[in-house]
Parts: sequence; C-alpha cells; structure tokens
Amino acid sequence: MTDRPEKLSGVVIDCLQYCKYSEAVFRDLKAGGVDAIHTTIAYHEDFQETVANIIRWNELFAAHGDLVLHGKTGADVRRAKAEGRIAVFFGLQNCSPIEDDIGLVEICHTLGVRFMQLSYNNQSLLASGCYESEDAGITRMGREVIAEMNRLGMVIDMSHSGERSTLEAIELSRRPIAVTHANPLSWHKVVRNKADTVLKALAASGGMLGFSLYPHHLKNGSSCALTEFCEMVARTADLMGVARLGIGSDLCHGQPKEVVQWMRRGTWTKEPLDPANPVVFPPQPAWFASNRDFPNIATGLAKVGFSPAEIDGIMGGNWLRFFEASFGGAKG
Amino acid sequence: MTDRPEKLSGVVIDCLQYCKYSEAVFRDLKAGGVDAIHTTIAYHEDFQETVANIIRWNELFAAHGDLVLHGKTGADVRRAKAEGRIAVFFGLQNCSPIEDDIGLVEICHTLGVRFMQLSYNNQSLLASGCYESEDAGITRMGREVIAEMNRLGMVIDMSHSGERSTLEAIELSRRPIAVTHANPLSWHKVVRNKADTVLKALAASGGMLGFSLYPHHLKNGSSCALTEFCEMVARTADLMGVARLGIGSDLCHGQPKEVVQWMRRGTWTKEPLDPANPVVFPPQPAWFASNRDFPNIATGLAKVGFSPAEIDGIMGGNWLRFFEASFGGAKG
Repeated sequence: MTDRPEKLSGVVIDCLQYCKYSEAVFRDLKAGGVDAIHTTIAYHEDFQETVANIIRWNELFAAHGDLVLHGKTGADVRRAKAEGRIAVFFGLQNCSPIEDDIGLVEICHTLGVRFMQLSYNNQSLLASGCYESEDAGITRMGREVIAEMNRLGMVIDMSHSGERSTLEAIELSRRPIAVTHANPLSWHKVVRNKADTVLKALAASGGMLGFSLYPHHLKNGSSCALTEFCEMVARTADLMGVARLGIGSDLCHGQPKEVVQWMRRGTWTKEPLDPANPVVFPPQPAWFASNRDFPNIATGLAKVGFSPAEIDGIMGGNWLRFFEASFGGAKG
Repeated sequence: MTDRPEKLSGVVIDCLQYCKYSEAVFRDLKAGGVDAIHTTIAYHEDFQETVANIIRWNELFAAHGDLVLHGKTGADVRRAKAEGRIAVFFGLQNCSPIEDDIGLVEICHTLGVRFMQLSYNNQSLLASGCYESEDAGITRMGREVIAEMNRLGMVIDMSHSGERSTLEAIELSRRPIAVTHANPLSWHKVVRNKADTVLKALAASGGMLGFSLYPHHLKNGSSCALTEFCEMVARTADLMGVARLGIGSDLCHGQPKEVVQWMRRGTWTKEPLDPANPVVFPPQPAWFASNRDFPNIATGLAKVGFSPAEIDGIMGGNWLRFFEASFGGAKG
C-alpha cells in the first residue's frame, strides 16, 4: 500500500444496498456518515415494474426531501454532503428492465439509472450469470448494449455475472466497469466472489471493486471478524491498487425472507422450496449490523495499516471519482 | 428408402409458415390440398403482444370459419380434412412470449400454442441462437422450461437455435422434439441449416425435420430446381429414415420487406440497415411460389423414387403421427 498524497474527499459511499427504505433507514445512513448510496431498483422486474419502483422512490424523495435526493452525477454526492442529505443512485441488478429493446437503455438512463448488471445469476439476453454451468460470454445484443451504455454513461456492473462474460465486458467496454458488490474468490470460495484474474483485469482497465458485507460472501460468514475483512481489503489493495477499491455492502436491512427467496428464484423455476434448506437472509456480522456501522470499517482499515488518504478513498473517495468519470455521456 | 406398407393418411401438413393470412391465402391452401399448417404467432413479441396476435387469429377464425379452424390436437387435422377446412396450429419462434415467467408456458398452451422455439437467432433466456458466435447450451431456466413443455405437450422446436443447444435439447427433452423448418447443412452450407450429427440425433430420438423452401436455405437459392430439392430429401431419408421427415416451408407469402427486417433485427440493435445489402424476402422458386404448389413437391418426390406411402408420410402423414403423440399431456 502506498500513501497517495491527495486532498481527502470526506465522502462515504455505499455502492450497493437494497434496504427496506424508510425514514428510520435514512436516519441510520446519516448516523453512519453515509453521503451516497447506489440502491437496486430491479432484480427481475420488467420495464413497467421498474418504473413503478421509481415512482415509489419519487414518493420517498417527496416525503423525505430533508434526508435524501435522487443522485445522478458525482456533483450530487458533494451537494448531498454539503446539504446534510444522502444522494440515492439507481441501479439495475439485471437487464430485465430493458426487456429485448435497446431503446430502453436510454429511457432508463433518462429516468436516472446509473448502473446495470448485464445478468443476474442466470443467463440473460446480454451475458451469462455466475450460477450457470457454462458461460459463452457476451451475446450479440450484449455487445450492442455495452456500446449504448458507454455512449450514455451507464456503468456496466458484473457482480452477478459469469467469469468469461465479466472478462469480455471489461474488454469490450470502452469505459471502466464495476463489480459493485463481491469479494476475492481467493479469500472466500463461493460462486459470487471473483477470481484474481478478473480483479486484475478490472483494475488494469480502471474499473472498481466494491467489497461486499453480505455474510455469504465473507470468510466465516456471519462470524467473520472485522480484522479478517480488513486484512482481505489490504491484500486486495496489493493486487488491484487501493484506488480501485470501495464498499458495496449488499446490505438488505429490514427485508423479509420472501425477498431473498424472490431474488434467487424469480419466476424462472417451478422447483418447490426445500424446507431442509431454508432460504433466508443470514445475520450480519456484529460490526456491520446496519447503516450506522460504516465508521467501524474505517476504524478497522486504520488498524490494518491503511493511511487516512487510503481510508478516505476506500470509504467513498474512489467511488466519487468513478462516479464523476462515468455518469456523463461519452466524449468524442 | 424402404417402402413402409401402411394405410395412407391422405393429409398434407405444412409445419411452418408465416403468410399474410386472408381469405385468398386460405383459398390457396385449399387449392394446394393443404389440411393443416403450423403458423408462427410470435417472433419477438412479449406475452401481451402475442395475445393480441391470437385475438387477430380469432377474428380470422370467426370471419372464415368455413375455411379454417384452430387446431389443437392431431384429431383436429383429420376433422379439418373431413370438413374441407384447414387446421391452423399456433407456434412461437422465440421464447419472448413467456418472458421470464415459467408459469406463462402453461398459459400459452391453454391458449392453443403447440410449438415453441427455445431461441430465435440470438441468445435467449433458455438457449443460444444459431447466429451467436458461441453456444453454451441449455440454461438453468431452459432446463426447467423443457420439463414444463414436456409435461404439457408443447413441442420444442430448435430451427433457429445453435448446434450445442439443439443437441442438448434433444438429450434433455423426455419427448421427441422438432426442427420444423431447415435443411441439411451438408446440402447447403448456411448457419440456419443443420449438421448431420444434429439430424441423426434428432431422428434417433424420434424427432422430426421439416424441409424448408425458403430460398436462403436452398442450394442455388431461388433457382434451386425441384429435382435438386427432392434428391436432397432422398439423401436425408437415407440419413434419418423417411418417417422422420415432413415439410416446413417457411413460406411468408404476401409479407412486405419490413417484416423480414423486423425478424432479423427486432429491437436488439441500433445498427442502421445497410443500403448496399438490402434485407428483403428473396423470390420463391418457380415450382413453389405459393400454397397452391404443394402438389409439385409430391410429384417431384415420386420422380426421385419415393413410394406413394413414403410421399404420403413426407407430405403430412409423418407430421400427423407426431402431432398425435406430442400435443397431449405427458403420460405417467
């Protein structure tokens, strides 16, 4: 880890969460010092269902305008911080909202969507998902959609995609992409975490990794210690460079188990749930139980030797630079 | 070719066409001696757009009940023949009508859909398309949907799918599948035609091949001679057995060029049409210009040495047996 002498951003960004939002959750975010979140507005929804979710967010923005605003640019993060609010950025964890119509990419961007995963666990029209047994890479339509996202300034997120699709997306995209919520496979071997080859290619292209705090992505699960987590961050900084790192907690605070069952199963299977293997949200680690606990991560990063500037970058400064570079239209 | 002593079915079936239907086309079909057709009711449509297409067919059935009926079983072919009408069977050339919801398979079957392609040229949620550069086979959702189609009695059609996906569909399906409209790749090398390995696996599993009369699938295109075509049928009978063969003309009589442009491009690409390479329907061979010309095929088959029983099978009897075995619910 090298100390990067630079002005501290002072911002904290969580680049992926899907809580059951309410005034209480917004106050948790403020208590945790969070200035901006990227939240998911679609997992399996089609276009019109996604619009309905945006309408619900517009109701939250109207009801809680003192606490939240709809973030669309990097400058909105700074504005939210200056005004004591939280900038909420919209993202799609699947390409289901664009259905089979490339014209819907621009419509979604106009509606404020700034991230889209090319697939969610399963094969999509654009790319393979990480739970498919085979991954043939980016499809014909996928290549077209990547170019369109590049043109508009919508970030390609490959958190739930297969390895080959992810490597091809990094290669095909003219702009840096993101894995907003995952950890290194070398630390904890689950399908959702990413191999070093992927992380190196991501970093080399100027892309970003958001570390996940979802227990299934953590070594020792819900029992993962803060120090273990922060030591993993340090090793990843050695691999990718500290400037390529941020947080993408995957926090689903307040969501009932039916939500995780729907995330996993959508409407693509008729297989009944197995009572012997209940699908529920696992308990969060004690040191990251809610949005109030972001300061614990900063403290843990300091204990494993990160400098104040590095910690500022991981906690939000790196995502802020990425947001500033990514959300505008393509140059030239 | 072995002569199969059996009672002649006397029926003529075209197991794939997409004409611009009207009383005139129905009268062409009668003049050509056709008793049943499988027609496409969706290429890129979602569920509700497909329902709108069924509503348009219901209007045709109501207006021309003396000429056509909605076919749902093999018995409907015999009934149509007895009543001097044409049984019209519905099929989907893509899985777009079931969107991402496996529950829509049963809904479509209830609405009378009897065939569904797992993909159309491009990658779908279920399988790869023949124009993708890579084919990873049947997806997680694809396996579930194959089982559901098997249960209900909806035929898996792989005419526009990739080779690996097709071989895996043959393997995974508990019931015989179909390639309703394609020719052997060994006769005319285009992406849409099928390799001998595929045709052999199809035949071995009790599946059916419908010979296409779309000029791009024919050796020498629009200039293909009837004898050339019928000699190809004879060679395919040697490869697959004559009982596995039928016609799936892919006739698009009366459709304007905008339809073939939409078939190719749907809404998945922003690439403009290339004026140097106009996308239009090619002229049909002189001996198969419309639905009136089915008797020419029977005549041609006789000239290359097929027996009356074999010709009866290829012209419709083989499809009829396949319909009778395929459209009911799974046994046991």
